[in-house]
Amino acid sequence: MEIIQDPQEIERKSMAIIADELGELDCSPAEEKVIKRVVHATADPEIAESVIVSETAIESGLKSLEQGSNIITDVNMLKAGINSRKVNELGGAINCFISDEQIAEEAKEAGITRSMMCMRKAVQEQENKIFVIGNAPTALFELIKLVNAGQANPGLIIGTPVGFVGAKESKLELEKVDVPYITLRGRKGGSAVAASIMNALLYL
Amino acid sequence: MEIIQDPQEIERKSMAIIADELGELDCSPAEEKVIKRVVHATADPEIAESVIVSETAIESGLKSLEQGSNIITDVNMLKAGINSRKVNELGGAINCFISDEQIAEEAKEAGITRSMMCMRKAVQEQENKIFVIGNAPTALFELIKLVNAGQANPGLIIGTPVGFVGAKESKLELEKVDVPYITLRGRKGGSAVAASIMNALLYL
Repeated sequence: MEIIQDPQEIERKSMAIIADELGELDCSPAEEKVIKRVVHATADPEIAESVIVSETAIESGLKSLEQGSNIITDVNMLKAGINSRKVNELGGAINCFISDEQIAEEAKEAGITRSMMCMRKAVQEQENKIFVIGNAPTALFELIKLVNAGQANPGLIIGTPVGFVGAKESKLELEKVDVPYITLRGRKGGSAVAASIMNALLYL
Repeated sequence: MEIIQDPQEIERKSMAIIADELGELDCSPAEEKVIKRVVHATADPEIAESVIVSETAIESGLKSLEQGSNIITDVNMLKAGINSRKVNELGGAINCFISDEQIAEEAKEAGITRSMMCMRKAVQEQENKIFVIGNAPTALFELIKLVNAGQANPGLIIGTPVGFVGAKESKLELEKVDVPYITLRGRKGGSAVAASIMNALLYL
């Protein structure tokens, strides 16, 4: 068996297979790149149809990145999956507060989840303009609530919680919100999907 | 809409839905827990049939964990997804060498990928007994080569690379190797799947 070792060759060949399997997509070239990255991360061509990109999402996300906006993630796994070198080059940082002991205390006192308290903390800083939620529906629900209450105005929300309880519902709520967003319909999603969308924007 | 906020309640309800959708599984209770964790991480009940657990995998994996074995991952995202507190409590550590500059240099000199060099380095230490490969087929191919050459004797290999080039093939090779392994047939997999398998063992 011949094993292809060159990472760039693997990437090139993977993208050629994806293009072949997906065929012509009815969307902008930038949106197509996002969708292909999601398929690449999941090895699931069927997922392409579930990716929803709001009209101004890519333009607004790229603008936020160029302004050096910080990126907030709900879990550390997702933080580790985003190309931090690229974010730092643009003047931004990737932050995740889920392991912060003080936030854990405050969440306990307030009777809410740590994920929710992380969102409340994150929106207090103006430089946090991109939110990437790959895991916790409660984080996405809370962020949507903060946006609707006028307490947050993100440049982009990437919301792809995965799971059987609340994930699908949280993403449907995101589609009703008046901010630029990228999401995935249904139960599927996760950190790898969210990271692939964020990285697609960073590579644009 | 009623939003369930209690993480334990979400987990309990998720597992009940998964049990209901999967029905009776023809495997050991420990294997069932592994499979359900994978379904939980992917929200994809169909994936249950693709999970392959070798006969001694769970017993050998648990023994390695109890002995305080280190866990080696191929990517940092996967490292971030494993419950490090549990691993530390057992006396082990989770290591990923992919960002190590010296390994990058050595890989370049040897004309191989960084992922491959990471495996060569990792097998040199006896306390590295559990290998969790969620992303790079080249890492899994290299690890299998080292095992077959008698240069590595892992207590467990969790191998679930995802993708269109080499992923499926690397996992088929893993099924031929004479070490305990857990894998996923086909193209699908990834860091979240690999982490869910490792965490299932840590929770057993």
